[in-house]
Amino acid sequence: MEQTVIERWGVLELSLPGKTEGNPFTDYTILGRFEGRHEDVMVSGFYDGGGIWKIRFMPSWPGEYRYTVFGSFSDRETSGAFRVREASGRNHGPVRTAGQFHFAYADGTPFYPMGTTCYVWTQQPDERIEETLRSLKEARFNKIRFCILPKHYDYNLGEPRTYPFEGAPMDSSVLTKDNFWNYDGKSEGNRFDLTRLNPSHFQHLEKCILSLQSLGIEADLIVMHPYDRWGFSCMPREADNLYWNYVIARFSAFRNVWWSLANEYDLLKDKTAEDWEHYAQLLLQNDPYGHLRSIHNCVPFYDHTRPWITHCSIQRQELYRGAELTNEWREQFGKPVVLDEIAYEGDIQHGWGNITGEELIRRFWEGAVRGGYPGHGETFLNKEGILWWSHGGKLRGESWKRIGFLLDVLRDVPGHGLKYLPAEWDSVCGIPEDTELARKTGYRLYYYSFMRPSFREFHQNDDTLYRAEIIDTWNMTITDAGVHRGRFRVELPARPYMAVRLIRA
Amino acid sequence: MEQTVIERWGVLELSLPGKTEGNPFTDYTILGRFEGRHEDVMVSGFYDGGGIWKIRFMPSWPGEYRYTVFGSFSDRETSGAFRVREASGRNHGPVRTAGQFHFAYADGTPFYPMGTTCYVWTQQPDERIEETLRSLKEARFNKIRFCILPKHYDYNLGEPRTYPFEGAPMDSSVLTKDNFWNYDGKSEGNRFDLTRLNPSHFQHLEKCILSLQSLGIEADLIVMHPYDRWGFSCMPREADNLYWNYVIARFSAFRNVWWSLANEYDLLKDKTAEDWEHYAQLLLQNDPYGHLRSIHNCVPFYDHTRPWITHCSIQRQELYRGAELTNEWREQFGKPVVLDEIAYEGDIQHGWGNITGEELIRRFWEGAVRGGYPGHGETFLNKEGILWWSHGGKLRGESWKRIGFLLDVLRDVPGHGLKYLPAEWDSVCGIPEDTELARKTGYRLYYYSFMRPSFREFHQNDDTLYRAEIIDTWNMTITDAGVHRGRFRVELPARPYMAVRLIRA
Repeated sequence: MEQTVIERWGVLELSLPGKTEGNPFTDYTILGRFEGRHEDVMVSGFYDGGGIWKIRFMPSWPGEYRYTVFGSFSDRETSGAFRVREASGRNHGPVRTAGQFHFAYADGTPFYPMGTTCYVWTQQPDERIEETLRSLKEARFNKIRFCILPKHYDYNLGEPRTYPFEGAPMDSSVLTKDNFWNYDGKSEGNRFDLTRLNPSHFQHLEKCILSLQSLGIEADLIVMHPYDRWGFSCMPREADNLYWNYVIARFSAFRNVWWSLANEYDLLKDKTAEDWEHYAQLLLQNDPYGHLRSIHNCVPFYDHTRPWITHCSIQRQELYRGAELTNEWREQFGKPVVLDEIAYEGDIQHGWGNITGEELIRRFWEGAVRGGYPGHGETFLNKEGILWWSHGGKLRGESWKRIGFLLDVLRDVPGHGLKYLPAEWDSVCGIPEDTELARKTGYRLYYYSFMRPSFREFHQNDDTLYRAEIIDTWNMTITDAGVHRGRFRVELPARPYMAVRLIRA
Repeated sequence: MEQTVIERWGVLELSLPGKTEGNPFTDYTILGRFEGRHEDVMVSGFYDGGGIWKIRFMPSWPGEYRYTVFGSFSDRETSGAFRVREASGRNHGPVRTAGQFHFAYADGTPFYPMGTTCYVWTQQPDERIEETLRSLKEARFNKIRFCILPKHYDYNLGEPRTYPFEGAPMDSSVLTKDNFWNYDGKSEGNRFDLTRLNPSHFQHLEKCILSLQSLGIEADLIVMHPYDRWGFSCMPREADNLYWNYVIARFSAFRNVWWSLANEYDLLKDKTAEDWEHYAQLLLQNDPYGHLRSIHNCVPFYDHTRPWITHCSIQRQELYRGAELTNEWREQFGKPVVLDEIAYEGDIQHGWGNITGEELIRRFWEGAVRGGYPGHGETFLNKEGILWWSHGGKLRGESWKRIGFLLDVLRDVPGHGLKYLPAEWDSVCGIPEDTELARKTGYRLYYYSFMRPSFREFHQNDDTLYRAEIIDTWNMTITDAGVHRGRFRVELPARPYMAVRLIRA
């Protein structure tokens, strides 16, 4: 018999027939123990419908592994062995925090999040899903935030392709763009059985997660959110537990998964801090791989200092400043800052979705130079009613074209990641996170934002030679500005959105 | 003998020969008492050089007046009478605060400050002064901030045409754009006699103040400032008193004078709060007309709640927000807010002088819709080294062309002045300052700033008819958007810098 071989951080999936009498989602257990030289991990499996039970495991080490699957789902244990070989290609493992403020894959490769948001792209027709994946790849996004549950909101009044539970929804033909605000999770007419999940909903999500993985894109899964007319945002604790544990059992073994406990947690009026802490406990207990965990606000931040939170997932709290506060948030919370909402490029009526591409890219640089990781989104009105922010599809704006350029600039920073250097009042200065590297390389990234100096003068010290480069963050050019010593002047084109990069020559 | 007739708020000036032995600036007094039916005013005169003493009076009422001039400057008293007729033309009297947050001329005509800054325009050659006046008129500015004393600063290394005191300056040929920072009021080589003023310096300033007056422009006189290499920013108390009293005696009778105690008071390191309070006392005692009084900051605000301060003269304290805080400053200080520095349109290296015209006009609207009065400035590099901000001359930017349009919109507000209405989070709403007028007219001015909605929905109430107009604040158009009732929608062009104005139809 040929031995099963998978990659480190790949997935070993076992499909086993099992019992289906009664309610397989609530009446049985399925557990697996996976033992290798460096780890001994217990995970739960799940019922996948059609009489099939599944269990998944992501090995964190290469080498020989053995497993045993057991539980009330079956009268017999299943055991076996497999081999894990080293990762290859773009498989660098799951993303972890690195140092205090940055991210790296498990193999140590730095990861600089350049994310976007398409809340329910997975609920669209197949052709649009394919289009979304092509768009993500072209834009070089490496993270995407999206929901597991369907979304009820402005521009999102249709039905999803599937529901997470068995049952049928309320009649949505009554909805109009003016009355949909009157419907919420407590609306009448929904007939979902909150004790029976719908495996096909999750099977499809998995396919999407794996498509992202093959493109090297992290799936920032939003497990709960308030924009609901079906009742999934205000389920009783038992249904929440069933849903959370099912999600964790199904998705944890995918290396590109991040957990976002909620989008705008504070708008889930039925949920309290105790609920969020409870969900966090479920993750801590049942996700053995320790995927990244965050929780995203509408107005008040969750207490991002809570130990289970790996990084801040921030929606800005002010109309005029957002990314500009990145360094303050880093100090306040002492964790990586991911700016998951700093307004989207677009032209809809809502102020969170109608800034220019220039303004969004300005915010990207404001955040990035301060050592944070801004996020993208697009909300352009169109006849088809397909808005990237929710549905994915085509990218229509100008900002997405400039994401990869910033990513390349960040990759060129000595060491791993930037931090804010309080320096001149009228520029933003980023230096390498590693103080010693900052000193040794002399690397400085000065960003001038909306200002448009026609020159700037520099004087780091009298002795060191510095190479100066002019970065046009909008036109995506990097121009050599010579090697200098002492006090020197760099001529600039008197346009906004310029930066100057200095490095020891 | 023909009776002297002047206009209300005009100037009666008496020129009298007098003593000159010793030091006429310090050794003599000259006082005048001016009596009319409604007022009885005592003012000081001043020595104007060439053996001539002058005394000026601005009558606040029409009718018959008598005067007596006396003091040690002469061995005999001079008496006389004159008649004051009503004001005519654009003479509406001096500007006062009106209500709590706005301004009006003494005759009650509302005054909406639309100011600019040219610190030392009066110290330039005559042709440039003429050019400045033409530019001010074309741009429809109605207030200009400028200094009485010469200025030493980046782009301001030359000598002024005159000095306020007799004497000679340090050798300025040693100055370069890189070393000028090393020179300040305590630099060596200045030989000024701080007991002897130079009347021609002030005569020329008066000519400039009167030229402004004839154009209907208020002269916001900056009496002290820190950018000095001649010693005028750090004079002893006796010299300060001499200078202040001379300034007050010469300029108070000009109706278009405002007193700005200082530009960036906090950078005058030799001066304490006690000094500023002392200068304020001199104004309170010796300016009988009660011209507007303010004091302008670099970083910390002066305590604008001080009773002698008539309005806040504000330099923004943050890089990213300024005019956006107007409503907070109104609440904090309870006085009119004049935003005398919110960065200038230009392209110099300094962050306070290199924003775009679009950004400056955006700041104007942010401040104006909140019931404040933003100020303009221009700092464009050019071969001639003539920067509007200091030297006046030609206006080169884009923002000045759009000042008059905003002024017209403010004049169209029912009643007098706007105030901020906390309403939607993603627009700025201004309503008439008078709450009853706001209610009766239904007037609302919504400003969308950098956002670019392609439509906005409105719903004031179900019964009232509203006329909607679309204001393009950049392209300066006002477009009728129909009459509506109940919930309605206004289509917008999905460009930044748009506003919507509603008024009861």
